[in-house]
Order: sequence, then structure tokens, then C-alpha cells
Amino acid sequence: MLEPTPGHKLVVTTDVLVEGLDFTAALSEPEDWGWKAVAVNLSDLAAMAAEARWLVLALTVPEATPVATLERVYAGVGEACRAFGAALVGGDISAGPALSLAVTALGEAERPVPRSGARPGDRLCVTGPLGAAAAGLALLSSAEPAAAGLLARFPGLAAAHRRPAPALAMGLALARVGATAMIDVSDGLAGDALHLAEASGTGLEIHDSAVPLAPGVAETAALLGRDPMALALGGGEDFVLAAALPRTADLGGVLDCGRFTPDPGRRVRVTGVGEAPLAGLAFDHFRGRAGG
Amino acid sequence: MLEPTPGHKLVVTTDVLVEGLDFTAALSEPEDWGWKAVAVNLSDLAAMAAEARWLVLALTVPEATPVATLERVYAGVGEACRAFGAALVGGDISAGPALSLAVTALGEAERPVPRSGARPGDRLCVTGPLGAAAAGLALLSSAEPAAAGLLARFPGLAAAHRRPAPALAMGLALARVGATAMIDVSDGLAGDALHLAEASGTGLEIHDSAVPLAPGVAETAALLGRDPMALALGGGEDFVLAAALPRTADLGGVLDCGRFTPDPGRRVRVTGVGEAPLAGLAFDHFRGRAGG
Repeated sequence: MLEPTPGHKLVVTTDVLVEGLDFTAALSEPEDWGWKAVAVNLSDLAAMAAEARWLVLALTVPEATPVATLERVYAGVGEACRAFGAALVGGDISAGPALSLAVTALGEAERPVPRSGARPGDRLCVTGPLGAAAAGLALLSSAEPAAAGLLARFPGLAAAHRRPAPALAMGLALARVGATAMIDVSDGLAGDALHLAEASGTGLEIHDSAVPLAPGVAETAALLGRDPMALALGGGEDFVLAAALPRTADLGGVLDCGRFTPDPGRRVRVTGVGEAPLAGLAFDHFRGRAGG
Repeated sequence: MLEPTPGHKLVVTTDVLVEGLDFTAALSEPEDWGWKAVAVNLSDLAAMAAEARWLVLALTVPEATPVATLERVYAGVGEACRAFGAALVGGDISAGPALSLAVTALGEAERPVPRSGARPGDRLCVTGPLGAAAAGLALLSSAEPAAAGLLARFPGLAAAHRRPAPALAMGLALARVGATAMIDVSDGLAGDALHLAEASGTGLEIHDSAVPLAPGVAETAALLGRDPMALALGGGEDFVLAAALPRTADLGGVLDCGRFTPDPGRRVRVTGVGEAPLAGLAFDHFRGRAGG
């Protein structure tokens, strides 16, 4: 029995994480899985400028899973709920061939921001640097002996993969200064910003020289022979927000890295890279995610 | 962006169905799976005296699943939403080793009914006869040649297994006449009514001679050498409502089959069966469900 706040819209989002695809015991702890299942959903709420309120968790659990592992998953769920002010209000548990965590999160928004409101001329802004989660995952999965050194030197990289933090406060702040469209960067900035342009019927330019790289991303790319821009634009799971902001809107803490254009026929242009690679950078769930 | 109704509480429920455990291609069609994933959640809303409003669906899908199968699952989801007045407002899809459907349903209740309000002296009522879903599943799974004849003679049995109908209108009606506690019969009346007694701190008597058997349940039990009362009390998935009603409450269409008692130490007594078997009748998710 939940009490909706008068005058607010209700927003709802659901996301399912599956062991072996979205997380693996080799790269993170059960507490991290629970945390992440909550955080990725709250990130969707953040992108709608909602405050996190309630969530429910439906688990499928293989018979061989120790109860202690489940308790650790629930502990991570609880930690994330406390950290971000959401209450776990229901759940279901069923047998299944893989551990999966389906979270549905409910939030309330006074002024929800859609994906579809970007206008030509709006700036493309992000609420933080990119590539940390992809670099963390790449290092954690790597057999390269120097990977451990980079993970120790840049602890934010593994943390970004294991314990993402939804940008709830920034979502509210962006709505307040007039953001016209928002999305969270869960599948890579290239693909996610493209969703904004598509939903809004605009074009989009991403200025790759302005895309902020998280600390350690360039070093990771150099070590592993990867393109740092591919980690930043296509890596996904950074859970910063990407927003369309009117040119005159003023908000500290956001970084401009492109603009929405009038021509929906040429949706994405990455300066210095060209247009073709962008589709390839967009994340495809059926090619796998963590470790996939 | 959903508009909560002023003056109503929000209720939320989640339930995950997994192929091979909750449904199998041998016994039902993909449209049925989608229907059932919706219906079992709406049944939980019915038990809280809520009106069904919105739902979200998180799927995990094995790589080998044909797109046509998924389309049929979605078609069944849509049919159930239309049948019961709920709107599908979001979803997620992820790769996974088994097809699973995690539905979260949101409802609104003016006067929600908890599980914990039953008082000694209240009647235990059900909104319909029991055992049809268990009998249907038993016949569908049976190698007995005469099973097909019974399925044809009692089409409600297979339908109860494949296309359960949540008792939304009865939930509202029960709340209106003063039901003090409600639950939907998803795991068998014995176990589910026990949940009411436990939550309410009362005892419970189930009068087995008063438990209404669905048409065909007795015939199925006779054919398969099963106990009809075990199908009715322990079979589960009937999705009728079990409610505690004050002695003076008046509502057509509900059937008395027991009463709540003062002594919480002796929680369940089945006339003519005794006390011991009841715990064994309660459904255990980790022993499997459909066909398990």
C-alpha cells in the first residue's frame, strides 16, 4: 500500500540482469549484483527526472545457488536502496536455470522529462565522464598482467562496473533548468544519444573531441590496444545522463559534447570519426554484455 | 508518465514465470504464457482489492527462441491486458538461458485489504470452486488414454491451467462488504489460507466437506488415482480469492469453507483429514510447478 504524492506523475521502469551475461562471479560479488540491479533501474528514473520511491525484485534462482549467495544479493539490494532513498516493497522468487534479477522501480516526478523533446540547436550534455565502466570491465576481464596495476591506480574503473551510481540529483537539476530530453547512458553514449534524436525527430552531432573521458580510460585503451573513444561512446553502463539542453540553460556539472541538428536524415556525426562507425558502437543486447 | 488517481493507494506486485517450470511448450501455447504472466499478477492486485492499471514486462530470451514465438507471447500479454483493463507501459528484454517473463503490475485501491486483518470468528470464503487448474495440468501431463476425453468433456480444466482469470471484480466487491483479509489462491487453498491466519495471528479451520470442487475435478481424481481434496487444497493456481469475511457480511457468489479461530497455536484443521497433511499440501516453488 503505497501513498502517491499528490501533483506528481508516476514513472515506472524495469530491467533484468542475468548471471553470465550482465554479471559473473568472476568479476564481481553477489552484493554488487544486487546493487547493480537496483542502480540501473534508478538510473532510468533519474533520466525521467523522477525521485526514486519504491521497487520490487523478481528473482530466478538455480537449485545449486547457496542461500548465503542470495542473502548477499539481497544485502546489495538493501545497500543500494538505502544509498538512493528507495524502498523495497515486494518480490518474487522462482526456480530457474540461471540467477536473474528483474527489478521494477517506481519513481515520482513533478516535471518528467521525455526522450522526445530535443529541438534543433539544443546542446547535447552529459553529467559525467564516460568510459569508466567499459574500461573497468575490460581490465577485470583481461589476462594482461599490467591490468591489476591500472585497476589499483584507478579504483573508479572497477567501481563503475560493479557499483554504478544513478544520477538522480542531476536528473532533477537538469529538469529544473529546462532539459528538453533525457536518457541514461546504459548502452553507450552513441546509441543512447541517437535514441534521443530519433524520438525527437532531430539530427545529432557528437563532438568526439569534447567527449569527457573518465580517469584511467585512456591508460586502459593504451594497455589493451583499444580505442578510448570506442570505450567512451560504445562502452555503455556509465549511467551518467545525456540530456538536450537549450543553449541558454545554465547548470554547473554538465559537459557539452555535441548538439542536436535540424536534419533528421543525418542523425549522427562524430567529428574526426565520420558517420559510419556510430551504428556499430551502439550496444546490442543479443551480443552479450558483461564479459560477453 | 502515469497519472495516479487522487485518494487511492498504489499497490504493486511482481511475479516471474520460467519456461520448463511455470509453463512448457508441450502443455500450452506462447499466447497462453503471456496471458498467464499478466493474469497471475493481476490476481495479486485483485487480492488487495485494487483495480488493475499498469504493468511492465521484463523478458529473458534464449538465443534459439524464434521471433515469432516472442510475438505470440506479446500477443497473449496484450489479450490479457485488454481483457482486464491494464496497460503495458514498459519492458525490458535480455538474453538468458531460459525464456522467463517477469511482470510487475500496478493497481490502485480505494480501500486496500491486507492479509493480516482476519479476526477469530470470521468466515473463510472463496470466490469460486477449486482444483480446476491442478486437474487440468494433471490431465494435460498424463499419458492416460482417457485424459483427452475428460479434457474435452470439461474444457474449463485446461483453460484454468492455461488462461487463469484474476478475480478483480470480486476483490472489489469483497472489500466493499468488509473483507478483513484476502489472498489469491496461487499455491493451493491450504497454504494460502494459512498465510492469512499467520499474518492475522489467528487459527484456521478448513471444512473440507464444504470446499467447492470445480467441475471435472472429481472425475480427474478418479481417473488418475489422485485425491480430489489434494487437487483442491494443494493444487494451486486456481486464482480464486480466499477472504476472511465477518459473519454478518453479505455477498453473493462467495462460498464458505472454513473459519478463523482464536487459537494461533493450532493454525489449520481440516475436518475429516486432521492437521498433519496440510503443511504437505502447501506448494513449494523449489519442487517445481507446471509439469515439474
